[in-house]
Amino acid sequence: MSDSLYAEAGVSIDKGNEAVNNIKKMVKKMGVTEIGKFSGFFPLGEGLSNPTLVSSADGVGTKLKIAFMMDKHDTIGKDLVNHCVDDIIVYGSKPLFFLDYIATGNLEPNTVSDIVSGMLNGCLENDFVLLGGETAEMPGFYKSKEYDVAGFIVGLIDKEKIIDGKNIKEGDLLIGLPSSGLHTNGYSLARLIAFEKMKLKVDSKVEGLEGTIGEELLKTHISYLRHVRTLHEENLIKGIAHITGGGFIENIPRILPDDVGAKIQKVWPVPEIFKFLNKAGKVSEEERYRVFNMGIGMVLIIDKKNLSRVEEKLSAINEKYYLIGQITKNNGTKRIIIN
Amino acid sequence: MSDSLYAEAGVSIDKGNEAVNNIKKMVKKMGVTEIGKFSGFFPLGEGLSNPTLVSSADGVGTKLKIAFMMDKHDTIGKDLVNHCVDDIIVYGSKPLFFLDYIATGNLEPNTVSDIVSGMLNGCLENDFVLLGGETAEMPGFYKSKEYDVAGFIVGLIDKEKIIDGKNIKEGDLLIGLPSSGLHTNGYSLARLIAFEKMKLKVDSKVEGLEGTIGEELLKTHISYLRHVRTLHEENLIKGIAHITGGGFIENIPRILPDDVGAKIQKVWPVPEIFKFLNKAGKVSEEERYRVFNMGIGMVLIIDKKNLSRVEEKLSAINEKYYLIGQITKNNGTKRIIIN
Repeated sequence: MSDSLYAEAGVSIDKGNEAVNNIKKMVKKMGVTEIGKFSGFFPLGEGLSNPTLVSSADGVGTKLKIAFMMDKHDTIGKDLVNHCVDDIIVYGSKPLFFLDYIATGNLEPNTVSDIVSGMLNGCLENDFVLLGGETAEMPGFYKSKEYDVAGFIVGLIDKEKIIDGKNIKEGDLLIGLPSSGLHTNGYSLARLIAFEKMKLKVDSKVEGLEGTIGEELLKTHISYLRHVRTLHEENLIKGIAHITGGGFIENIPRILPDDVGAKIQKVWPVPEIFKFLNKAGKVSEEERYRVFNMGIGMVLIIDKKNLSRVEEKLSAINEKYYLIGQITKNNGTKRIIIN
Repeated sequence: MSDSLYAEAGVSIDKGNEAVNNIKKMVKKMGVTEIGKFSGFFPLGEGLSNPTLVSSADGVGTKLKIAFMMDKHDTIGKDLVNHCVDDIIVYGSKPLFFLDYIATGNLEPNTVSDIVSGMLNGCLENDFVLLGGETAEMPGFYKSKEYDVAGFIVGLIDKEKIIDGKNIKEGDLLIGLPSSGLHTNGYSLARLIAFEKMKLKVDSKVEGLEGTIGEELLKTHISYLRHVRTLHEENLIKGIAHITGGGFIENIPRILPDDVGAKIQKVWPVPEIFKFLNKAGKVSEEERYRVFNMGIGMVLIIDKKNLSRVEEKLSAINEKYYLIGQITKNNGTKRIIIN
């Protein structure tokens, strides 16, 4: 069948089918059979007294520009998956499945396969399935070889087990889990500083950084599923903040009861990439904690009496952590104090 | 707090917060309280013997360009919702909730509010909730005043009640449900014909069309939830195809068992917009049924013996339908014959 006229309009159904077939092959290896029709299926099973779905949608923002500049597309999918995972495990939920949306100007089956392989990789590592997705070819929307991606995740939790932060009280402790770098936030500012102000190229070397600036900025968002799961099975967590856009300043208050604030000590090793960006961009002390994660991708709030048990459990799974602060009274305007 | 440097990079956290606050206000009116933190919650309830989640992700494709050209953004959200609804009700499932992803070059809170109001409208009409979403400001990705949207829907069904098409047999009937126009497919071709070949403007009048060409192309994707619900409660449907990208030719075979095909008679009134596009664009007979829905947004396959009951039920809810064809043996290459 000819789709010549449609192809003239910039849409290739054949190329679309090729991309879908590539995806299907990859997904089949995961043992999921129902994909590629109109939607995906997920059997819920039993055993929860008050089952509640937890769901979130996300993108990876302008981190994509780094992938474009490096012409490397097989990691961005894992960023997307892990960002979504971290957004739902803050409640203690177990991720069930993931769906994706990929939009391009003109569909390059190999690029789409690379993106999806990153997603599958992320899904496998987090032990859930890629249930479906949409790959849209939108001529005139995206520049040649550019695209956007969005991810949707659904998790399950027993209502009684939701981590909601409401029991957080003065004296509780803040545990910081190290990030791999910027994760998926602050990229517009980082690109402005690195590539416009400092005129770097993606393959430029910067003092203090192991790899190139491009490699550094493309490091994958970490999933904290293992950390949360191991601690939550013993009810050791009172609240969790995923440090995304808005940094410490906006994300920690999201889970605090109105009467408390937090005092944070800068005791963890700030990754070199942030030191470089803050210095080169003259980013103020306040702004850097609002735009960047500064080396802490997730903050757990625990009862002081559980500290040694938390330390034991995290050490047992070989995960690093830092005791970074304490819950205080709510001091009004400056609710999160960092010094 | 100043976010001046970040604003210089093209991202306004304050504007983002303004947009989120607008959305929160709208969502609160729906009675949903948990939105705007890291994810949304949905209690599952009880009563199904084998509960299965059905989920789908979608966009609205280049129909967005029509919204941009008309500077009208309050309908596209409903397109997105209804497209998603139709993708999961083909299995007989009940939609539970919806999440959205909106990406823009620079965030205009009013535009975002318009988009979300369309989504809320769609969610309300389909009687489910907007559970959450992500609004991303991505400088350098989208042209000024342009954006992309993606939707994600989750529905629930008892496994035993899934409409899977496997009992479809020779002699079964095809019922066509009328579309409002192009729905969300074929827009790249339609824009090429209307605005490049024919040099129309969005406010141009075309013989036979009631409104302007822009109004016609922006007509909202129809949700067939009422049709499907009323018929499925009496188990009257054997299979459903949502006529999206790929048209009749690709979507109907998706649900047919291998041994059958379908013969379709063009008995329904083809909307004027398709007549205009096909004539002006010299779209071949074959291509038009692959790219456009040609006036039929959803095809239901029923047992011949249930025809009068189906007619009664659809008439009772005042919905139009057409008996458009019959299931045949699989004739090999030409599985869907249209004449």
